[in-house]
Amino acid sequence: MEAEFLAHLERRLPAHPLLKIGPGDDAAVLDLTARPDCVVTTDLLIDGVHFRLESLGAEQAGYKALAVNLSDLAAMAALPVAVVISLAVPRSSGLEVACRLLEGVLPLADRYQVAIAGGDTNVTDGPLVVSITALGQVTEAGSLTRAGALPGDVLIATGPFGGSLLGHHACFEPKVDEALLLNHRYQLHAGIDVSDGLALDVSRLAIASGCGAVLCQRQIAISSAGEQAAADDGRTSLEHALSDGEDFELVLAVSSAEAKRILAERPLDGALYPIGRMVEQAGLWMEDRSGRLTALTAKGYLHGTADDERV
Amino acid sequence: MEAEFLAHLERRLPAHPLLKIGPGDDAAVLDLTARPDCVVTTDLLIDGVHFRLESLGAEQAGYKALAVNLSDLAAMAALPVAVVISLAVPRSSGLEVACRLLEGVLPLADRYQVAIAGGDTNVTDGPLVVSITALGQVTEAGSLTRAGALPGDVLIATGPFGGSLLGHHACFEPKVDEALLLNHRYQLHAGIDVSDGLALDVSRLAIASGCGAVLCQRQIAISSAGEQAAADDGRTSLEHALSDGEDFELVLAVSSAEAKRILAERPLDGALYPIGRMVEQAGLWMEDRSGRLTALTAKGYLHGTADDERV
Repeated sequence: MEAEFLAHLERRLPAHPLLKIGPGDDAAVLDLTARPDCVVTTDLLIDGVHFRLESLGAEQAGYKALAVNLSDLAAMAALPVAVVISLAVPRSSGLEVACRLLEGVLPLADRYQVAIAGGDTNVTDGPLVVSITALGQVTEAGSLTRAGALPGDVLIATGPFGGSLLGHHACFEPKVDEALLLNHRYQLHAGIDVSDGLALDVSRLAIASGCGAVLCQRQIAISSAGEQAAADDGRTSLEHALSDGEDFELVLAVSSAEAKRILAERPLDGALYPIGRMVEQAGLWMEDRSGRLTALTAKGYLHGTADDERV
Repeated sequence: MEAEFLAHLERRLPAHPLLKIGPGDDAAVLDLTARPDCVVTTDLLIDGVHFRLESLGAEQAGYKALAVNLSDLAAMAALPVAVVISLAVPRSSGLEVACRLLEGVLPLADRYQVAIAGGDTNVTDGPLVVSITALGQVTEAGSLTRAGALPGDVLIATGPFGGSLLGHHACFEPKVDEALLLNHRYQLHAGIDVSDGLALDVSRLAIASGCGAVLCQRQIAISSAGEQAAADDGRTSLEHALSDGEDFELVLAVSSAEAKRILAERPLDGALYPIGRMVEQAGLWMEDRSGRLTALTAKGYLHGTADDERV
């Protein structure tokens, strides 16, 4: 199976200017001379945990596996360069699943000029596993981390939240271009991509930055899927926005002056939403429509914990 | 589970001089300025396919998962720098398995000064999966590939072959130091690590180099495990040496003059074995003790193919 898939790959994979030695040897070699700060991230996705292969299809599973990794690079404001892709494919459908998965990966890799530098394909009696490691480069504007937000900073989100399970979780566009552009043009203090839920991920940013965060109820944009999910299960759309996860929007911390500039200049095609602010006191807070603050539990969606528990 | 494991990791992971941003953010950042040609390789191991967790234990599984990746870097004569580790751990024993696995990884990572730059931990209902991506740097001596061997070159192996399943497959030392030293001191034309079987991997080196290879029966060193495996199943020890796989020895192609120099100077603690030569005519050949050549099928051990078939 692996030999056949490798032969297929050899025909299917495009060349890449930074790939000095491509797939097929014991390892690949990338030329990072121009930007030698190498950003590395990895995400492993499992059928039945992060997607359902039967309903989603292998192509979309491949797309999602790459997109979540690119979203992590976006959160660092890194320029994507290359990925390696390891698969554990079910014995019965191995080659077909692997080829379809690749077809989901390729257009997205092409769009962000990401080299597919290698991989490892195995047959399993268990569920499909897709493990991708993505490499990126720090640009001249420097990298973005979760640390660095300051009290008084405004939190800006690149999109609305909630209801990702209705489809968005597997077909979103990673905010790579947005991150690069904003990091190039503005002074960003900190950033994170929302994978495990807005509340949980903002609380992570606050902890890493050594301060607290306030989310403003009237400012958080809720996606139509978030509204739909609320209508379906009776929880509020705000709860969905705060804890559904897999929105893969960026949340950025910038000074209030820089926030004004960004919101006035509208540098992106898509809208930007000021959703809160950083404060000195550690913790996570919700400001309701009347301006009252209440402590907010950092709820979020953690895959694959017992019963997919919300923590 | 992941949060607990991450907390455990934070306490357990040492710092690393090239790790500018370590695990815990959306991605890690490595400073590759000194050697910006970045070598990347990945291997995914599955319980029941690449090891048996029940008999081997999680610690040794972790060791093996890192060692096979370091062996790939050795085959490129690359200096190991960092790894990311993704896990799918069984729901029932998740945290314990993850922690034990880490204890198998850490001493080996420490020995080769490899930073653990990040990872992703998930719970699965399927078998344990360990996916590691290793990053290395090309040294001043350049990288080694499978291509570049020339007719007339001598094939030199770093050790004996056969019977790896009796234990060696999971407790071998990757030949990193040997590769770096030999590549630094001698002119190596090509190299490969023997993961899928001596015959199959040498045939890969020959194909990549656009020539053929002759293996010499009287020169191939057979490990005591190879002799034991032959005594156990009645196949010859040579067959075991040629096709068992997971020896993780290096096979290097060097000019015959360089081979003489290497074999005379004995630069390594361990022995080096001249096991064959490259020839113009494509294909793989065995030279028997009387000097007669016969075509050799590139047999090898491919994990996870139907019934672990030998191809």
